[in-house]
Amino acid sequence: MSMADQDEATAAVVEGLKRLYHTKLKPLEQTYMFGWFHSPPLTDSEFESKPQVLMCGQYSTGKTSFIRYLLGRDFPGQRIGPEPTTDRFVAVMDGSDERVVPGNALTVSPNLPYRGLDRFGVSFLNKFEASQLPSPVLRNITIVDTPGVLSGEKQRVSRGYDFVNVCHWFAERADLILLLFDAHKLDISDEFKAVIERLKGQDDKIRVILNKADQVDRQKLMRVYGALMWSMGKIIRTPEVLRVYVGSFWDEPLMYDDNAALFDMEERDLMNDLRELPRNSAVRKINELVKRCRLAKVHAYIIGYLRAQMPSMMGKEKVQKQLTADLAQVFRAVMKQHNLAPGDFPDLEPFRSKLADTNFTKFPKLKVKMLEELDEMLSVDIPRLMEMLPRTVAPTRADEQIRNFMQESNDTPTPPKYNAP
Amino acid sequence: MSMADQDEATAAVVEGLKRLYHTKLKPLEQTYMFGWFHSPPLTDSEFESKPQVLMCGQYSTGKTSFIRYLLGRDFPGQRIGPEPTTDRFVAVMDGSDERVVPGNALTVSPNLPYRGLDRFGVSFLNKFEASQLPSPVLRNITIVDTPGVLSGEKQRVSRGYDFVNVCHWFAERADLILLLFDAHKLDISDEFKAVIERLKGQDDKIRVILNKADQVDRQKLMRVYGALMWSMGKIIRTPEVLRVYVGSFWDEPLMYDDNAALFDMEERDLMNDLRELPRNSAVRKINELVKRCRLAKVHAYIIGYLRAQMPSMMGKEKVQKQLTADLAQVFRAVMKQHNLAPGDFPDLEPFRSKLADTNFTKFPKLKVKMLEELDEMLSVDIPRLMEMLPRTVAPTRADEQIRNFMQESNDTPTPPKYNAP
Ligand SMILES: Nc1ncnc2c1ncn2[C@@H]1O[C@H](COP(=O)(O)OP(=O)(O)OP(=O)(O)O)[C@@H](O)[C@H]1O
Ligand SMILES: Nc1ncnc2c1ncn2[C@@H]1O[C@H](COP(=O)(O)OP(=O)(O)OP(=O)(O)O)[C@@H](O)[C@H]1O
Ligand SMILES: [Mg+2]
Ligand SMILES: [Mg+2]
Repeated sequence: MSMADQDEATAAVVEGLKRLYHTKLKPLEQTYMFGWFHSPPLTDSEFESKPQVLMCGQYSTGKTSFIRYLLGRDFPGQRIGPEPTTDRFVAVMDGSDERVVPGNALTVSPNLPYRGLDRFGVSFLNKFEASQLPSPVLRNITIVDTPGVLSGEKQRVSRGYDFVNVCHWFAERADLILLLFDAHKLDISDEFKAVIERLKGQDDKIRVILNKADQVDRQKLMRVYGALMWSMGKIIRTPEVLRVYVGSFWDEPLMYDDNAALFDMEERDLMNDLRELPRNSAVRKINELVKRCRLAKVHAYIIGYLRAQMPSMMGKEKVQKQLTADLAQVFRAVMKQHNLAPGDFPDLEPFRSKLADTNFTKFPKLKVKMLEELDEMLSVDIPRLMEMLPRTVAPTRADEQIRNFMQESNDTPTPPKYNAP
Repeated sequence: MSMADQDEATAAVVEGLKRLYHTKLKPLEQTYMFGWFHSPPLTDSEFESKPQVLMCGQYSTGKTSFIRYLLGRDFPGQRIGPEPTTDRFVAVMDGSDERVVPGNALTVSPNLPYRGLDRFGVSFLNKFEASQLPSPVLRNITIVDTPGVLSGEKQRVSRGYDFVNVCHWFAERADLILLLFDAHKLDISDEFKAVIERLKGQDDKIRVILNKADQVDRQKLMRVYGALMWSMGKIIRTPEVLRVYVGSFWDEPLMYDDNAALFDMEERDLMNDLRELPRNSAVRKINELVKRCRLAKVHAYIIGYLRAQMPSMMGKEKVQKQLTADLAQVFRAVMKQHNLAPGDFPDLEPFRSKLADTNFTKFPKLKVKMLEELDEMLSVDIPRLMEMLPRTVAPTRADEQIRNFMQESNDTPTPPKYNAP
């Protein structure tokens, strides 16, 4: 499948998801007050948003330079320099005109997925902006630059917003998280460590870039790389080894060039990783919608069940009280009756407290037709969308080698693993 | 200081330690029953024993080949091959004749530091031997080869002895622990992991060898090395990064030779590390004797104190009982009276139970002269011995045959163990 075909397929899948959501899931959500019990309805911008790449790292590791290198050009508001330079979060995105859009404006834009950021307050929004420019790269991804992490407590206090949680917010919505390190000055401050630890559970999106790798000789590079893996293994804790791309990601010639061939291969692998993002992003969106479907289905059954237990005349209040108290029992009954997975049920206590403000008699009855539509969406429509996606990306030479290595390693019982791209 | 001078200095230090032990510490130990409360008197072979290098690793990682390469020749009983070959612990040591000495004979030899091994039973001793041969390398070190670790539970059961604890016994007495890995087939089985975890606290003696590094291309080597560090960091857990030597330690030409220069540097560093062993070993012996001195000194004060509390006529039993019960109080009193460090005191309970079988009235009184001798040993004699040791490793010619390393010098300064920057 060609690159253009892939893009088209991805776009078609996103359109399909939106349509399914609007015709089959959203009506059921509205009928059963899903928004109130769980989360508000999805907006089109959430389906359409481009894959986002989040850049994180200590200051001066070359995050901004990396973005410049990817784009092949300067971007509005870009600042590069040896001191801590970038002092804000910058979403670098496609736009017909070159301009900088301030954070407050971004969070109210219905076309952008940044509405949730207002929770971090005005001192954060003053440190958030979009850099818009026309760029073929940005047609497929949005890149989020971040302020470099300094060492020491002082900075954290003076920032005026919760850096670790802002990073986490972006990371949750990102399709790829790039952690940059400087081979020439390896450093993981406590705050950066906190950022990485906060990414637990999203490890499969994390890639590491050991940048400026040409600034040290080969033996030292080996040591630095080893020290990085040693530390990261203890911070991330998964048995799977993070993929690290070693190289120098800017336009200048290499200082030590004895690793030139290695850096070339690494860069090619990284570019492949980035190229794959739109497709992976579609898969991620499908997964999230499936999760939401299953939750909504269970939710509808619970609400319908509670409604069905209510007496038509007397003692309504007493029954509602009893059902609320016996909620665990209710969940079990619903699970058994409709053969549902325990993992799709909501947490007991938050659900119980939501119930406290409702009147079971006013709940809708079980609408079988709606649930059949949902089942059809899960069992027919979504698999059909999945089919449209290209199955694999063309492997590069290096990919193949790594895969071979994985297979060899798999012959032996407990091999240390890493994420093959 | 030349290499020969260094050897001489090291030998002189060992002689000095022995003399100090016999004239100043041992008499005090005997007077105050140190052997019964703590550990038996040291033998000359414990002072004289050569620095030991312990080789550990999964099977077929090249442990036996590594020793062969170091020696530059075959050694008696050596077996090298692609299947699990070495099935025993082999102490490869200097000897005028080439021969293999079985384990049972080794543990009864007063000249060898292997007496403690009989605790592991006869099925272990049947899998332990010495390989003796004349070799300039072995004039300075003894190398202990071990059976390669297999994966899976079966082997552990069929061994008939406690592999992990035998490894630990050797590791405690080793001056250097080399953990070998195969870059071509990286594997850390549960049992090998258990061996490494058991080395906790001895991390400063551990070095890692990523062997057969020429069997993979550079990018794959990077991945393998990263995976190794990732896993080891989690097993060892210290913030200090283990030093890894990357290379191919046998006589064959390299397969991929694009890393040849790196491997050369790595090998030179490793050889320096080995060359330093005799000197480091002397330092280690000094440290251990100092520790013993301090323990013996505190011990003498405790015994003398208990003796002094005993009445001359009546109620001896009652007083002894009371003192035993108030042992913590006794320790505090002794500590205060003689200004001793809490860390030099023995654990309370084991000491109390040893006391149960004694008669305090028969304890010797405090012999001030003896304690003064001990203080002199700690404050004058031992520092004087320390002075005799070369402060740095001597520089050497760069163009020498590596395998003659023990008689040579080298102009590369010995690298410190690498610490994460
Ligand atoms: N690949 C590279 N090799 C060597 N130097 C580089 C490389 N990339 C960037 N630099 C230099 O490193 C410095 C920091 O670069 P840059 O501003 O892009 O880093 P940053 O991570 O965005 O820093 P901050 O966190 O302060 O925004 C600059 O002087 C830049 O020229
Ligand atoms: N540096 C090297 N590069 C490639 N192959 C090697 C290297 N060193 C040894 N080998 C080969 O690896 C195999 C295993 O070697 P060897 O017997 O020395 O390993 P070992 O760790 O002692 O194994 P075991 O634990 O079974 O005793 C042999 O076939 C040997 O020729
Ligand atoms: Mg920047
Ligand atoms: Mg062997």
